[in-house]
Amino acid sequence: MNNITLEGARKVIDAALKKSEELGVKMNIAVVDAGTNLVAFNKMDDAWLGSIDISQKKARTARYFNMNTGEIGKLSQPGGSLYNIEHSNNGLITFPGGVVLKNAAGEIIGAVGVSGSTVEDDHAVAEAGASAI
Amino acid sequence: MNNITLEGARKVIDAALKKSEELGVKMNIAVVDAGTNLVAFNKMDDAWLGSIDISQKKARTARYFNMNTGEIGKLSQPGGSLYNIEHSNNGLITFPGGVVLKNAAGEIIGAVGVSGSTVEDDHAVAEAGASAI
Amino acid sequence: MNNITLEGARKVIDAALKKSEELGVKMNIAVVDAGTNLVAFNKMDDAWLGSIDISQKKARTARYFNMNTGEIGKLSQPGGSLYNIEHSNNGLITFPGGVVLKNAAGEIIGAVGVSGSTVEDDHAVAEAGASAI
Amino acid sequence: MNNITLEGARKVIDAALKKSEELGVKMNIAVVDAGTNLVAFNKMDDAWLGSIDISQKKARTARYFNMNTGEIGKLSQPGGSLYNIEHSNNGLITFPGGVVLKNAAGEIIGAVGVSGSTVEDDHAVAEAGASAI
Repeated sequence: MNNITLEGARKVIDAALKKSEELGVKMNIAVVDAGTNLVAFNKMDDAWLGSIDISQKKARTARYFNMNTGEIGKLSQPGGSLYNIEHSNNGLITFPGGVVLKNAAGEIIGAVGVSGSTVEDDHAVAEAGASAI
Repeated sequence: MNNITLEGARKVIDAALKKSEELGVKMNIAVVDAGTNLVAFNKMDDAWLGSIDISQKKARTARYFNMNTGEIGKLSQPGGSLYNIEHSNNGLITFPGGVVLKNAAGEIIGAVGVSGSTVEDDHAVAEAGASAI
Repeated sequence: MNNITLEGARKVIDAALKKSEELGVKMNIAVVDAGTNLVAFNKMDDAWLGSIDISQKKARTARYFNMNTGEIGKLSQPGGSLYNIEHSNNGLITFPGGVVLKNAAGEIIGAVGVSGSTVEDDHAVAEAGASAI
Repeated sequence: MNNITLEGARKVIDAALKKSEELGVKMNIAVVDAGTNLVAFNKMDDAWLGSIDISQKKARTARYFNMNTGEIGKLSQPGGSLYNIEHSNNGLITFPGGVVLKNAAGEIIGAVGVSGSTVEDDHAVAEAGASAI
């Protein structure tokens, strides 16, 4: 498998939902494929409406640059080498919560984006999702 | 329930996936809530990439006007009373495949949009999804 | 007065609401000024969500060309002289429901756009609003 | 009531207008429902044209994250955990002036956004509007 399947994306989302329930948070969870196209999405009841878009942008941002979104955010600060890169691609989100998805061979097959709580929680839930592959 | 829940949206998607498999088609399936916000989405493997957006626009269009999308398309033809209504709301899709979701009391609680095959198949799969509520 | 005031816009909306109630319809009503900027807007309870944008686009379209929206729609049909003009200005709506607002001297001071029912009802409510000035 | 009505939205706007007059400021005032859809809007005569959009974005931003807009702005600064979140959702406004609207049971039923003066004035007028519910 060199691209995430729907079956794989649903496993990611279910693992992320399970982690969210453990943490007691309400999340939006998006999975994109290797081409940055949306494969699956779930919004938990009462999760922030503004995080529907953010979770998808986090997933795309992670795959756009093949790294966790928080890594890009370190470089996009004022004075940083990628200052205001968020203006590209119809809007990036560069704080934590976007994580790349890899297959057993270590190849990137997509990304997961999570939004709805603190960036620490968002990242933890995204990691839990990514671990399900 | 006067707004679709994630549990309800997942039932809609699973019923739509089952119908798609019966028909042997590859679909994109989107569920929006009563406020037209995305609640759940699934893209079947090898489904058209262009239908990711279309399925979401169909779901929103159905809820925007509280009717199946194909009904609007009858009125938006050249010479019709709603000609080129598709230019509103960041783009409508007005051919079949978008169906409103109702609760037991008959209240509209969201909508489902399906895209990936003929409009007849799209509509049949959307109806199968809507029937799961 | 060569530009609609908030007081004037509120009169337009209240007259339009009164007419809507007489007709038993649920409308979205928007008033723009001579510069096409939004001055006032009201969405009646349970009015179509998709008509929030359409009512505003009708008002702007009427003022963009200083004529009722339905007049433009006659010219934007396939083969017509303004075919697909709807692609301009971030989306026009060219079926009835947008009406220019004039002061006592006959100068255009803005426009009203109404959406939520048939185009005949939309136009009648817009005219009722325009008559309040 | 678990969603703002037009009657409620008009009360919010009228209270905000009254406060604006007391402060001697010219405001744009927008009310959105629980689904972030526009319900009512008023632009005072000579209020900034650029604030028409800002007031609406403030209202949506408050409802997107269920908090006053100024709270988000504290976190979206350079080096902050939500740096550049403004690039999501077709543009957020994260300085003060957006306030959530709650019913008697404390449930969020929409939001009000105000723009046209200092952020302190904007927030005070939004709070006055929110108190009318």
